[in-house]
Amino acid sequence: MVSQLNPRERILMGPGPSTVPHRIRQALSAPTLGHLDPQYIGYMDETCQLMRNVFQTSNPLTFPVSGTGMAGMEAVVVNLVEPGDEVIVCVNGVFGARMKDNMLRAGANVHTLEVPWGKSFSKEQIAECIEQHPASKLLGIVQAETSTGALQDLTGLGQICHDAGMLLAVDAVTSLGGHDLQVDAWGIDAVYSGTQKCLSCPPGLSPVSFSPRAIEKMDARKTKVQSWYLDVSMLKNYYTGGGGRAYHHTAPINMIYALREALAIVLEEGLEARFARHRELHLKLRAGLEALGLCYVPDNSLATLNCVALPAGVDEAAIRGRLLNEFDIEIGAGLGEFAGKAWRIGLMGHTATHRNVTLLLAALKECLP
Amino acid sequence: MVSQLNPRERILMGPGPSTVPHRIRQALSAPTLGHLDPQYIGYMDETCQLMRNVFQTSNPLTFPVSGTGMAGMEAVVVNLVEPGDEVIVCVNGVFGARMKDNMLRAGANVHTLEVPWGKSFSKEQIAECIEQHPASKLLGIVQAETSTGALQDLTGLGQICHDAGMLLAVDAVTSLGGHDLQVDAWGIDAVYSGTQKCLSCPPGLSPVSFSPRAIEKMDARKTKVQSWYLDVSMLKNYYTGGGGRAYHHTAPINMIYALREALAIVLEEGLEARFARHRELHLKLRAGLEALGLCYVPDNSLATLNCVALPAGVDEAAIRGRLLNEFDIEIGAGLGEFAGKAWRIGLMGHTATHRNVTLLLAALKECLP
Repeated sequence: MVSQLNPRERILMGPGPSTVPHRIRQALSAPTLGHLDPQYIGYMDETCQLMRNVFQTSNPLTFPVSGTGMAGMEAVVVNLVEPGDEVIVCVNGVFGARMKDNMLRAGANVHTLEVPWGKSFSKEQIAECIEQHPASKLLGIVQAETSTGALQDLTGLGQICHDAGMLLAVDAVTSLGGHDLQVDAWGIDAVYSGTQKCLSCPPGLSPVSFSPRAIEKMDARKTKVQSWYLDVSMLKNYYTGGGGRAYHHTAPINMIYALREALAIVLEEGLEARFARHRELHLKLRAGLEALGLCYVPDNSLATLNCVALPAGVDEAAIRGRLLNEFDIEIGAGLGEFAGKAWRIGLMGHTATHRNVTLLLAALKECLP
Repeated sequence: MVSQLNPRERILMGPGPSTVPHRIRQALSAPTLGHLDPQYIGYMDETCQLMRNVFQTSNPLTFPVSGTGMAGMEAVVVNLVEPGDEVIVCVNGVFGARMKDNMLRAGANVHTLEVPWGKSFSKEQIAECIEQHPASKLLGIVQAETSTGALQDLTGLGQICHDAGMLLAVDAVTSLGGHDLQVDAWGIDAVYSGTQKCLSCPPGLSPVSFSPRAIEKMDARKTKVQSWYLDVSMLKNYYTGGGGRAYHHTAPINMIYALREALAIVLEEGLEARFARHRELHLKLRAGLEALGLCYVPDNSLATLNCVALPAGVDEAAIRGRLLNEFDIEIGAGLGEFAGKAWRIGLMGHTATHRNVTLLLAALKECLP
């Protein structure tokens, strides 16, 4: 009635998902347990602890939202924002703009701090914006802007926000497990990521973490969280053991198995070694692309997402098609303002190997005119 | 650093998840494709078509929400309700109450029609309630109330609602693939389900379907949908091909593989045969439980969820513990008003076999005093 499932073994070098290693796909296919089974609760608790280690936090409220990274974004926004709250959102690409859209839907009064696409924000710009909007309660910023390749330096921002009585919320979808992210040391109050980027787990979950300061804000809410599914006041009873593991929704059991394995792999490699590998292979890729005559967009600073301007006069979709069909390599098109102007080449997690970089460069050489 | 994943091979006879067959877990672990890969788009389109067949609908807007059944509930509510809309919600257990909670969070003015837990609603009760609240725009009702075992007859309700200018929204989480559900013939305008019940797929997705009448209501919205993640006006471009498969969020690729396989299995068995199997094994289980001296709660009418009153003087948790630890069988505790008063025994999808029913009855016999 339906054909046999037989997906090709692509090398995923787009903006995500990245290539998922066999070990993680094997974990994914383990026998399904019930979501209240003590053995499953044990795996879930381990998963949350591994997540704390990768987030570099001791936040008790660290768990996987049962949806993709965008569900994590919404979870952070709707739990921390009440209608009428003033917030500042930093926008330098698609994902900052989405955070703003989420804030508006949650009823926030949003002040937008913008720099051109591709750029990142200086501490001075942010401090100045906070001074102009002293009633703001939260600053939202993207660490790794997947649409442009901009890496945002977050050091010092926690202090600036806390001194102003604000929370700091960070989008770490394309950085967690690929770039340094020190949730506690940097004073981050809320952070969300995705499983399908530098963790090389299939898409479907969003690791999140909330600081005690963020919990205080949530506990002081005067209004109900507008999303039932993402209401942390209920979710925390299941994930952190309060209220006897009260059932909220059925956790995505098999995806949790996969995430647990993915996080274990990250920690076996070691965070420092993993960040260094991403950096090293980014430099190799950059040198190779530039040798082919391709130019990075200005200020591309992410190792995990390489945004290169399209060479003049090429049919970009045709080249991506050849990479996919002749070499089983996926790279990404441009997004938003960069649509039709750039390629996005991901080097994330299991994808970031010498073999893949060498192969992509050789294949591109064949495909470029 | 972390123990080897080795979940026990439980027989899942609780309120869900049900036991996931090897074939579906194997599909789950297939190589991950990109969410815009033409091969993946093909699998996704097939999945949506299979879903239409199982929902017995020709609704073009039929797709899997990237979250569990409760995300499907929220998707239906936030897309169809605008702040201030009058709605009627039928509450006879936990899941009707949740739908009401979702409606309130979406700003609806909710009229609640209630009957005692375990009962279902007559067409007369519903028609009368609609007459009392003629400005209502939507009726929400649960087909299979997982907290009580009540099966709701839906025939005729679509007509009643449409005659009153209302939409009919149905929770089919514990019925899809186990009980007859004729979305088109019964005039259902919006329906959501879960993967982990009678489809025997792991938890993580929520099949949903919207009628053309529901789309009209969504297209006429004056306000933005409060959830970015669940906003159907954007999701439909990805799932139904409008706007060139515009990227919204990264689809949970591997879960879609699993759902596609699960739906194929349902259709290979045939809907009629599958419903009959659930019914037959329910009757066998019922006879066996009653022979052991156990009583169903009044009006239990679901085949897929068997709600039995606890026998007097037993330590119910101890018996569930023995079933789990000695026999690797999971059954469910009572929920809500039935907590500490009932067991919930699921017979869903792959779990509903003669072998499992015979085994459970024999194991229960050993465990009961």
